[in-house]
Amino acid sequence: MSGQPRLVEVRRKVLKHNDIVADELRGRFAAAGIFVVSLVSSPGSGKTAFLERTLFRMRERFRVAALVGDLATENDCARLARAGAPVRQITTGTVCHLDADMVDKALNGWDLGALDFLFIENVGNLVCPSSYDLGENLRLVLISVTEGEDKPLKYPTIFHTADLAAITKIDLATAVEFDSAAAIRNIQSVRPGMKVLELSAKTSQGMDEWFAVLESKLARSVQASG
Amino acid sequence: MSGQPRLVEVRRKVLKHNDIVADELRGRFAAAGIFVVSLVSSPGSGKTAFLERTLFRMRERFRVAALVGDLATENDCARLARAGAPVRQITTGTVCHLDADMVDKALNGWDLGALDFLFIENVGNLVCPSSYDLGENLRLVLISVTEGEDKPLKYPTIFHTADLAAITKIDLATAVEFDSAAAIRNIQSVRPGMKVLELSAKTSQGMDEWFAVLESKLARSVQASG
Repeated sequence: MSGQPRLVEVRRKVLKHNDIVADELRGRFAAAGIFVVSLVSSPGSGKTAFLERTLFRMRERFRVAALVGDLATENDCARLARAGAPVRQITTGTVCHLDADMVDKALNGWDLGALDFLFIENVGNLVCPSSYDLGENLRLVLISVTEGEDKPLKYPTIFHTADLAAITKIDLATAVEFDSAAAIRNIQSVRPGMKVLELSAKTSQGMDEWFAVLESKLARSVQASG
Repeated sequence: MSGQPRLVEVRRKVLKHNDIVADELRGRFAAAGIFVVSLVSSPGSGKTAFLERTLFRMRERFRVAALVGDLATENDCARLARAGAPVRQITTGTVCHLDADMVDKALNGWDLGALDFLFIENVGNLVCPSSYDLGENLRLVLISVTEGEDKPLKYPTIFHTADLAAITKIDLATAVEFDSAAAIRNIQSVRPGMKVLELSAKTSQGMDEWFAVLESKLARSVQASG
């Protein structure tokens, strides 16, 4: 006999608890007038490089900060601190995703009212983070051209729960014979109508479009709460 | 209050159950004289291309078969079938890893005595599969040059539970400015003494060394049980 049904039952309770905390976070974010973006992807899809570039550029005109999740190291935090924005690391140990409690704890003592954007970089994992609401306003799923065009079909849940997709490392597309049209078709078949950005943190291709998306989202969210 | 401690407790029971089933599998594999290799990695690290090449070449001289795990599609199974070896798909739904029960069920009706090697491709996930023993003789962890040299430090658990590491897509190393020496150093700092292969399924670089490892492992395991 397998222990799976018990696990599923307890996991359901954990998710219910997570949803309550996530809702509280969402309320606090709205009250503070902050727009929160979470990033989910496989390990090595370029989340940190992308976030570094985003923080560096966005902080010219906005008040930005980031939380970064990792199993074991604080490397990302040190790397992102170079962008000059406040960054905190969440070290999860063996836990394969961030949850709302971890975000809540990591925000302890931060004045959310002093921020426009908060970015939350999840643990590199294309499966487990999909189930955990972090109270974010926008969930961005990233896949790099080196991972292959089929990933949206093989990991549909994370695409289902995302609001926006980005194809990263687009500068390597030719070298790895990546078929962008096929990848976009696969994303659309899982999540019809979802916007897909094609980006390179290295060459900056597509980054202006990403910044424009962020600005319009913030403007709309301020308008909605004002 | 968080629901985590309850989840940890139930997860421990599930793992205990898994270990029992995995031990039974290990016994069956040994009795059948079959050598079982599991593959773990991030999504998109090139597991399937590597396995396709492995099955294609190894079947010239050995009786080989494979199980491939995926959340949602049977694409890998269809792709691997081209190598001419028997392949079965395990579709896990939303479950982020294979477990011993899934392997046990998937083997139903297969004559293990008619095989020399069984390959088990896990779900693309650098975190969760580390906790689940599948009864395999050798666990190979793959990272591609496009994922970055830091991955062993950021995902240490999977390297701790692996017996052998492979750096894949080595043909792209120059294009992505990958520092192999640093990656190997990072692997060794997590798992001192673990052998690291540098491979390309595309150009076949390093593949002969991999086939030699497999042959020597089979020879040794047959000797040990004979």
